[in-house]
Order: sequence, then structure tokens, then C-alpha cells
Amino acid sequence: MTHLLLLADNLDMSPLAGPLTERLQPFAPNLRVCLPGDPGADTAEIAVCWNPPAGALATLPQLRLVHSIAAGVDNILSDPTLPDVPLCRVVDPAHAQGMTEFVMWGVLHFHRHFDAVLANQSKALWRRPRQIDAARRRIGVMGLGTLGARVATELHRFGFDVRGWSRERKSLPGITTFGADQFTGFCSDLDLAVCLLPLTEQTRGILGRATFDALPRGARLIHAGRGEHVVRADLLAALEDGQLGGAIVDVFDTEPLPPDDAYWRASNLIVTPHMASVASFECIGEQVAYNVQQLLSGGALRHVVDRSRGY
Amino acid sequence: MTHLLLLADNLDMSPLAGPLTERLQPFAPNLRVCLPGDPGADTAEIAVCWNPPAGALATLPQLRLVHSIAAGVDNILSDPTLPDVPLCRVVDPAHAQGMTEFVMWGVLHFHRHFDAVLANQSKALWRRPRQIDAARRRIGVMGLGTLGARVATELHRFGFDVRGWSRERKSLPGITTFGADQFTGFCSDLDLAVCLLPLTEQTRGILGRATFDALPRGARLIHAGRGEHVVRADLLAALEDGQLGGAIVDVFDTEPLPPDDAYWRASNLIVTPHMASVASFECIGEQVAYNVQQLLSGGALRHVVDRSRGY
Repeated sequence: MTHLLLLADNLDMSPLAGPLTERLQPFAPNLRVCLPGDPGADTAEIAVCWNPPAGALATLPQLRLVHSIAAGVDNILSDPTLPDVPLCRVVDPAHAQGMTEFVMWGVLHFHRHFDAVLANQSKALWRRPRQIDAARRRIGVMGLGTLGARVATELHRFGFDVRGWSRERKSLPGITTFGADQFTGFCSDLDLAVCLLPLTEQTRGILGRATFDALPRGARLIHAGRGEHVVRADLLAALEDGQLGGAIVDVFDTEPLPPDDAYWRASNLIVTPHMASVASFECIGEQVAYNVQQLLSGGALRHVVDRSRGY
Repeated sequence: MTHLLLLADNLDMSPLAGPLTERLQPFAPNLRVCLPGDPGADTAEIAVCWNPPAGALATLPQLRLVHSIAAGVDNILSDPTLPDVPLCRVVDPAHAQGMTEFVMWGVLHFHRHFDAVLANQSKALWRRPRQIDAARRRIGVMGLGTLGARVATELHRFGFDVRGWSRERKSLPGITTFGADQFTGFCSDLDLAVCLLPLTEQTRGILGRATFDALPRGARLIHAGRGEHVVRADLLAALEDGQLGGAIVDVFDTEPLPPDDAYWRASNLIVTPHMASVASFECIGEQVAYNVQQLLSGGALRHVVDRSRGY
């Protein structure tokens, strides 16, 4: 009997049990999906995780595979006792679509001045905003992984002037790309920066004063990476003093964001509830089942995380 | 000497004089651009208009061409004394881009529930909205002229399920189209209707109770056609009683919308200041100059309005 353990903090993983069992039944009839405390959970060979409690994975002596249900795995890598077994993540095409929708809304929101228009409505003020060609809007995408590359490509196709920055410089048609050591140049003339970076030791706190000051005064920010990319005091100060002309932030250190958090009422800040995009349970089930099948048959795993990079 | 008269109500046309003169100089050195009251204005052979005062064009005995500076010509055709000379309009590719941006923002705003998210922020409420595949959102575009066809095509390319309705049924790749007599079927299962119709006798008042009731309960509306498409009391009632789940309206009978107008404070209504898209003076100058050159050399005019259709 092989056990697959669903392990999470602050998320009900039980809806995954049915779809996973159904997909795995045909080729792994002896596999059982279980939750912490169920019989066999402590002999699990596979753990499927979201934000697993620190130390929990180290208590599983027969562990052979850790599978994230998300694209980001920082919540798993942050555990210093993480066993040395393969770690995989989910890369969902629908996830990229959802992220593209979220970012496109945000870019158009600032590009066409809907922030001012909505504020004017509350004052019954008729002020037609200035219309600028999309080709003259410089949008910088930080992070060119599966999500970032798709978002950058769609923004470019829609007519914007798009630049991209990533650790290893990428090549994307129509997009001006920058490598790790060209960050200041990347920032220097952006109208809007979009952060879709993975959370690593190199990117933690990257959305702080130095970056905001590298942007032109009044630039806007759309952040759908991780809460820990942000230096909170710096973001609030940059919005307050106008170095940032506006921001849309979807991810936070503490989620849900507490009702008394200053972010809710910060000037020129739109708070969204970590909604940019989530992988569907169907896609998670499909990709986890594929990797379990590969593991059991000795095949190559998909979307294996490089721990030295962090993604 | 040939005179070209710039004729408008409520709009300063003088910024057009320079670009037009400059473009026309090389091939029509004897042409003069003038404003009402200038010498030669009453012998103008060409009138370039926005909302010309009723009767004004009939006072020009030598008139040979009326040119709108916009895509819509209802403000010119509404004059019963309009002389029987060719009437042309401006069709600006950048105009279609601006309209696509406006509609895309609005579609994404409703699709991803940003209306609820923004309202929740003001109450410090963290509520992750439900995410639905774009392919399951049925968007109906009313009017498939230059603007509507471009908007429908871009929405389809972005992943939405797009339908189109026009007087004469069009053929557009990937889009389910309906003709004039299929309007109820077109409306019957839309999540969102986008009105980009020209204003004609057939379309005046089309955004009224019968249309709202033909849509599924809670459907949304984006209206960037003309103010006169709307039956005001019906729109306010449909928003109030929930037959319409929300609307973005960019055009009004009276513009600017007076500060005490009920629209500003209607429930679930976003009022935008006729900002969806304007043709640039540069594009207007280029297209008017082209048609003036054609007129003077006896060539074929571009974008001539069919008065029986109204566009």
C-alpha cells in the first residue's frame, strides 16, 4: 500500500482527495490518499502540500516526493528540515490566463486613468483624461517564468512597449529584456512595473526604497508575486510621498489581510485579495497524478524545483 | 481661392487649422482654412464639422463636401436642412485601439469581479472572488463596424466567448454572429453586452426595457455608443431592480453630465466622461486632407456616409 498525504496549513485540501484518487486508481490501485491523522499518514511516500507546518515533512521517513499545489514553493523551501527528495510544483496554463487577465486589467486601469475617473465619479466631476498611445507606455515585467513571459507577450501584443527583467536574461519576441545586473537600467524609464517574481533569497524585499527610487517619479506598480517581496514601510512611504503614483497589490505577508491593516486605507493603493490567479483543483489533480505515475514507474518528473534557484 | 470652414458647437476646432493647412498646402496652395465669421467663410466649399448648429450648413451655397471629424455622424444627419452633398467621416485605427482598451478594461472589470473587490476594500473586507474561465463568459457586441469588429476580435483572441449583432449579419472568424431579426436570440444568454452601435432611427432607444429583459437576469452592460441609444428611466430602473447587474456608461444625452444628474450616484453604474476613444487631431487632419485632395482632383472619396443607413 502506498500513501499520499495531503498536508496544508490554513487551506482545506480535502476537495483534492476525490479527483486524485479517481485519476490514480487505474494505474496505482494500491495508492491511498489521506489527511494528517488518517491511518497510514505517517508512512506516506508522497506529500502534496500548501504551506506545510515547519518540521512536518521531516517526520515522514518513507517520503519520496514533495509536490506543491502552486507555482510558488517558497512556503515549502522555507522549512530548514525539508527532506532531500524531489520537490515539484504545478504549472497551470489557466493560471497564466488568470494572471494575464489580472495584470491586463491593472495596466489598462492606470493607462486609461480609471483610478482618476472612478474617484471623479464620487465627486460628480466630468474630467476627460488624456489619452496616450499604448505604444508610448513602457511596462516592465519583473520575472519572466511561465507567468511573466505570458503576461509580457500579451501586453506587447496588445500594443504596449514592454520590457522584461529576469535573473538569466531571456529572449522574447518584441520585448526588450534585461539580465540580473541590469536592474537599474530596466527600471529607469518605466511607467509601470509588474512584479511576478518567485520568492528567493535574492528577491526577498526587492520592492523597497532602492527599487522605487530607480523608477521614474510617479510610476505605478502591480504586484502579484509574494508578500515577502515588499518592504512594507517603503511601499507605504513611496505611495504617500508620490514616488509611486499608484499600486495594485494582491499578495501580503499575512493573509487574509487583517481588517485594521494600514494597507486597506493607504493612498493610491488598490488591495486585492490574492485573487490574481489560482491553479484549479482539476489542473492540480492532473499534474500531481502525472508525477505520481512517473514516480511509481521510474519515469522523469515534470516541473521539478531547482532548490538553488528556488523555483 | 477655395475656403474650408471649421464648424462646431461646444468644441474648439482651431487646433485643426494648422495641421490641415500644412497638409493641404503642397497640392492646394489656394485653399484657406477658416472659422465662422472669417473672410470667405460664407463661400466655403468644404465644411469640417463636429455638432454643427442646425441650419448652418444650408447657408453655404457653394458647399461641395461635409466632413465629420468623428466616426459617428448622427450630430450632422440630424439637421433636416443638411445640403445634398457628400458626407464623410473619420475612421481612425488609433480610435479602434482606444475603444478596445476601454472595452477590455470594462469586460475584465466585471469578469474578474473588480467591482466587488473595490467595494470590499472600502470596508476592509477580504473576499476572494470566484474565478471563471474566460471561455465560459459570453460577451455580445452590438454593432460590428470598424470599432465593433475590432473589439469583438480582440475579446475573442483574449479567450472570451464572443457573439456579434449587426444590421447586416457579418462573418468574423471565431465569433458567432446574428443579423437584425435575431436580436432576441443574440441577447438570450449573454453575461455582458457591449453597445458600439451607430445612432440611427433603428437604434435610437435600443438600450431600453425590452433589451434589458431579453438579457439574462444580472447581465452587465458596457455602453460606448451614443447617449440617445439609452432610455434613461429604463436603464436606471434595470440597475435598481437588478435585471442589470452593473453597467459602464460613457455617453450621455447631455455632456458634460450635469453635477446633479442621478446617473452619478446610480447603483452599480460606472460613469465615464465620454473617454472611450477620440480620434486624434493628427488622424483627423490626415483623413480630411486626403478627401479634400480627392475632391479637388475629382478622385473617389473615402469613408462616405450612406445616408439611408446613417453611417
